[in-house]
Amino acid sequence: MRKTNFFERKGPFSINSLFKNLKLKKKNIFDIKDLKSATNNDLTFLDSLDYINIAKNTQAFVCLTTEKLKKYLPANCEPIIVGNVLFELCKVIRIFYPGADLDIPDGTLEKPKRLNNLNIKFGKNVLVGKNSKIGKNSFIGSNTIIEHDVSIGENCIIGSQVLIRNSLIGNNVVIQDGCKIGLKGFGFIPLKDKNLRFPHIGKVVINDNAELGANCTIDRGSIGDTVIGKNTFLDNQVHLAHNVKIGNNCMIAGQVGFAGSSIIGDNVSIGGQAGVSGHLKIGNNVKIGGGSGVVKNVEDGSVVMGYPAVSLKNFIKNLKK
Amino acid sequence: MRKTNFFERKGPFSINSLFKNLKLKKKNIFDIKDLKSATNNDLTFLDSLDYINIAKNTQAFVCLTTEKLKKYLPANCEPIIVGNVLFELCKVIRIFYPGADLDIPDGTLEKPKRLNNLNIKFGKNVLVGKNSKIGKNSFIGSNTIIEHDVSIGENCIIGSQVLIRNSLIGNNVVIQDGCKIGLKGFGFIPLKDKNLRFPHIGKVVINDNAELGANCTIDRGSIGDTVIGKNTFLDNQVHLAHNVKIGNNCMIAGQVGFAGSSIIGDNVSIGGQAGVSGHLKIGNNVKIGGGSGVVKNVEDGSVVMGYPAVSLKNFIKNLKK
Amino acid sequence: MRKTNFFERKGPFSINSLFKNLKLKKKNIFDIKDLKSATNNDLTFLDSLDYINIAKNTQAFVCLTTEKLKKYLPANCEPIIVGNVLFELCKVIRIFYPGADLDIPDGTLEKPKRLNNLNIKFGKNVLVGKNSKIGKNSFIGSNTIIEHDVSIGENCIIGSQVLIRNSLIGNNVVIQDGCKIGLKGFGFIPLKDKNLRFPHIGKVVINDNAELGANCTIDRGSIGDTVIGKNTFLDNQVHLAHNVKIGNNCMIAGQVGFAGSSIIGDNVSIGGQAGVSGHLKIGNNVKIGGGSGVVKNVEDGSVVMGYPAVSLKNFIKNLKK
Repeated sequence: MRKTNFFERKGPFSINSLFKNLKLKKKNIFDIKDLKSATNNDLTFLDSLDYINIAKNTQAFVCLTTEKLKKYLPANCEPIIVGNVLFELCKVIRIFYPGADLDIPDGTLEKPKRLNNLNIKFGKNVLVGKNSKIGKNSFIGSNTIIEHDVSIGENCIIGSQVLIRNSLIGNNVVIQDGCKIGLKGFGFIPLKDKNLRFPHIGKVVINDNAELGANCTIDRGSIGDTVIGKNTFLDNQVHLAHNVKIGNNCMIAGQVGFAGSSIIGDNVSIGGQAGVSGHLKIGNNVKIGGGSGVVKNVEDGSVVMGYPAVSLKNFIKNLKK
Repeated sequence: MRKTNFFERKGPFSINSLFKNLKLKKKNIFDIKDLKSATNNDLTFLDSLDYINIAKNTQAFVCLTTEKLKKYLPANCEPIIVGNVLFELCKVIRIFYPGADLDIPDGTLEKPKRLNNLNIKFGKNVLVGKNSKIGKNSFIGSNTIIEHDVSIGENCIIGSQVLIRNSLIGNNVVIQDGCKIGLKGFGFIPLKDKNLRFPHIGKVVINDNAELGANCTIDRGSIGDTVIGKNTFLDNQVHLAHNVKIGNNCMIAGQVGFAGSSIIGDNVSIGGQAGVSGHLKIGNNVKIGGGSGVVKNVEDGSVVMGYPAVSLKNFIKNLKK
Repeated sequence: MRKTNFFERKGPFSINSLFKNLKLKKKNIFDIKDLKSATNNDLTFLDSLDYINIAKNTQAFVCLTTEKLKKYLPANCEPIIVGNVLFELCKVIRIFYPGADLDIPDGTLEKPKRLNNLNIKFGKNVLVGKNSKIGKNSFIGSNTIIEHDVSIGENCIIGSQVLIRNSLIGNNVVIQDGCKIGLKGFGFIPLKDKNLRFPHIGKVVINDNAELGANCTIDRGSIGDTVIGKNTFLDNQVHLAHNVKIGNNCMIAGQVGFAGSSIIGDNVSIGGQAGVSGHLKIGNNVKIGGGSGVVKNVEDGSVVMGYPAVSLKNFIKNLKK
């Protein structure tokens, strides 16, 4: 898949213009990235013990963090100590990406050009934004909107009344009717009278052979991406919050919801109406029973059930009490 | 916000024509309102002990109620004793508002007129009904439908494939793609073979700075309104039944559902997939854990969790048993 | 209601061409049907003890089944013993119905012809497929799509931004905005890298006087139909998986989900966010509490609640422990 930037990035900005009262080496910051993908021209952030293993190897030039967490950063990465990491991060991302905190409807939408050599079939009233690409032999249903810079692979079937923005979609992907994909997520700094919205500069990546049922909502990543793995099938009305990553060959039944940033392994099956809390790691080959509420990490090969979810063995034992 | 009537009201009707076998002072009834907003030209109703404190001060001329509840009405309000308050209420509202039990699609929809001086940006294929107003600097996404008499404030962002009817929307409101707002709720008198639908003569009020995620469904009030407070943010796929009132500065995560007529305070946060039963009062500064099922009133400042939801302390204690 | 075939069926195929290494009487197979509706020209399948009572009376010529289950078939029905019934069934249905495993958007959609004598009212931008029928005095909301061969009865109100395919809809039916009806369900044989989709050759049948709330998703049957009974009302965001059958006069509150093939009786009421597992039988006059997770059959007249759902009496008893 091609790399793409859906949002206009400002800058670079000198580190001293961004953080005025700090004594830092003079240098330009080009972008804001997560600990893993940041280079030595970038700013990153560390606000939880969950990420200290990744922090140790970050290449970032500077890192927004707390007094308590700064010791987990390597020598090459200068800490910027703040009281509220996410609040400061939010403010600085808003400087770099001033348009990414709100989803202004795409003003470049037009009727698609018929490209006969690609054998793409469009329904009625399809709207496609600037620079979007659709692969050969794909179908796009009626009243569907594909905003600018979206990429859709070959042999895809996109249903009707779908909306896709800020997304890269592989080959042989099926997206059923009414899905809303690539929207900004539910991220903001709660402030009295006027919350400060967190920019969502990531995208949604849907890999080859995946399928989404009707009326699913898949938010894009805030920093980093929301990802659906190869050959992973979602049923109707599934909700993925920002930055959720689901592995390959998973089966997610109807009305399941994922809070932000959870990472799901390969070959995971999840029963209907289950919920997965935020920032969790669900291993490979896990089975989660329908209606469960998962609030802790789950190890490879586990079978869990209940609210809160426990091992199936314990769930059955508790029932007998 | 301006006051508005979305529905045609018939009448006035003499009280004796509405209730033939009762011996009541001859007088015309002009409208049907809840206990609080009724004037002395109106009919109201009382069918639950939950509302006796409001009943004591009602200004209504007459009140549909039961033998058991009539003692809670003030002297100025004449009781009309019936076997089934809601059934009789339903029938009389249907006389006053014959078109409010069903959502006939708006026949007045047209392409919006471009009003350059207001700097409103419309996507493609937007449809707007008669008398609807949209404030300056607002965006309306493609394929969105705004039915007659809807009012949308300034600086709003309404996504694509949204439907709005019977609603008043403040300034700086964000409504993400696919939301359905202002529809008649799930209210009817169950009758064999053909339920009798309860008219929904209320509206939806969404106050300044509020945000709704994708594919939310917000039903309008039956009598009285459904209200979303200032700076309250809803995530994707949230469902509000008729007459739910949510206060200011609340955070409602994905797939949360509210049954009818519950009242939620200010600064309330609710985790994903939680459910709130009907006719409850949730105080200010309450936190409700994800996946909880709230079936009782919750006091100010409480933290509750579980199904049915109990205090967090008790929830944890029960887990250890 | 008229009988209809939404999918092109190939064949007939000789039984020996379908199953090459079996020694079976030479005969042509015309169709694939469930145990009950199969005739002696059809192939059927039996893969669970749940269906042995129906199996005993099947008229099918041959039946895909296992060594263990074959004894439940009558003498007139020849068993075809296989390792994985659903896998073999899937492959053979794909031969008969090569287009039913994916929902290719309907290429026959056009603006509807105005038939003045029927008094049908269409909103703007309605699209209707070939051979679809709409009864007199019905309303079809704006941006709604009705695909080929769908039948809608008289006096129906279909909201806006609705999609209907492969469905037969009775008289006086209300379908609120944003519903997606008749889509292929979540059925496939999980295979590494590329799941094998189960064809969905059934339809959705919605009977007279039924109502569906906003943004519901109703999948069609795989083999056999998904059915909503007369005067049954569904609230917003309800999900019915393939082959679910709901009886008459039921009330299904918001965000309820049904897994595949469950059969719900008459006069059943289900509270918000409840879930019903697959292949269950819920009796008549059952009440299921909000948020419940039903994982077992429920007898006529029962009141159940909880996760997993138990009798209300036991639910309350357990709470007091």
